[in-house]
Amino acid sequence: MTVRGAQQVTEREHLCMPEDARKRARRRIAIARGHLESIQKMLEDPHAYCVDVLVQLKAVQGALSGVGEVVLRGHLEAHVVTAAARGDTTEMIDELMEAIRLR
Amino acid sequence: MTVRGAQQVTEREHLCMPEDARKRARRRIAIARGHLESIQKMLEDPHAYCVDVLVQLKAVQGALSGVGEVVLRGHLEAHVVTAAARGDTTEMIDELMEAIRLR
Amino acid sequence: MTVRGAQQVTEREHLCMPEDARKRARRRIAIARGHLESIQKMLEDPHAYCVDVLVQLKAVQGALSGVGEVVLRGHLEAHVVTAAARGDTTEMIDELMEAIRLR
Amino acid sequence: MTVRGAQQVTEREHLCMPEDARKRARRRIAIARGHLESIQKMLEDPHAYCVDVLVQLKAVQGALSGVGEVVLRGHLEAHVVTAAARGDTTEMIDELMEAIRLR
Repeated sequence: MTVRGAQQVTEREHLCMPEDARKRARRRIAIARGHLESIQKMLEDPHAYCVDVLVQLKAVQGALSGVGEVVLRGHLEAHVVTAAARGDTTEMIDELMEAIRLR
Repeated sequence: MTVRGAQQVTEREHLCMPEDARKRARRRIAIARGHLESIQKMLEDPHAYCVDVLVQLKAVQGALSGVGEVVLRGHLEAHVVTAAARGDTTEMIDELMEAIRLR
Repeated sequence: MTVRGAQQVTEREHLCMPEDARKRARRRIAIARGHLESIQKMLEDPHAYCVDVLVQLKAVQGALSGVGEVVLRGHLEAHVVTAAARGDTTEMIDELMEAIRLR
Repeated sequence: MTVRGAQQVTEREHLCMPEDARKRARRRIAIARGHLESIQKMLEDPHAYCVDVLVQLKAVQGALSGVGEVVLRGHLEAHVVTAAARGDTTEMIDELMEAIRLR
């Protein structure tokens, strides 16, 4: 384990998210959190109307799908398109398919 | 506006969300917000792994679908099943279908 | 069973799909089937391009969502909005939520 | 056209679907078509119950998602993981993201 330590760090760096994608994803998540906070406020009002809440919830889900796309694109760019050269094709695809299936 | 005020309040009270559904929805949104905060923290780590982030994002989306179900069920119980008696069937259904379509 | 037979038929007639929704749903399903047949033909061609197939599959799924909306709207119009008057609110909502959850 | 013909065929062969994925996708689509035919039959019956139809429609949509996964996996295995080596990374990812977004 200690022997392979350095190599593992290198591997993980190969597979970690591009800086730019991480930043954009964080920024969009911050917006989604603010949006959820405003839905919580809506729900404190006894006159909150269900359909308005449903519409707002769908908007947040759309925003989170957008975050997912940012992350997925970063993953494809940084790792998936180079998997054959790196030699971990099967592992890359299995993980990716699982993540997509979870949607 | 002032003349119709009292009636409007009554109508809105007919159509506002059941207290119980509002509470449960708020509690679940609070959990989803905390979950998003932890994903933001994950994304601050330069070693964050894309697929882990995708999996966590899907989990939050599942949780928000759960909130949507709580709200939708409250809406059906409180308003939709009584629409025929109240006489606003078309309006109720149009709004509901639009909300469902937005998913 | 035989004693309740007549009543059950009446109940089922209360809950069966409106003629118009059944017709529209059938017509749309016929179109979706034709679309699937043309995707099968695409897939016989060794030069079929994956992304084209994915795009066509998504189109059929969108069409089937459209059928689902026709059926759901028919169900809401014919049964759900009258559930309170008929007295089977809980049953109506449980079934509907299950069907929506299955999406 | 004729001048570029040979090269185009080569390119298209690089990007066409693996034989195995095409076969499996065709077989699954055939099953989905049969399933749709049986839903059409359900809808001919005036006693067809809306929720049953919704449940069956969701089952077909699940099956078509399964076809999409077969195609997507074939695409990832055959083309995406080798995009960097081939030099068409951006094109590959743009197309793939568009296909995923269309879901």
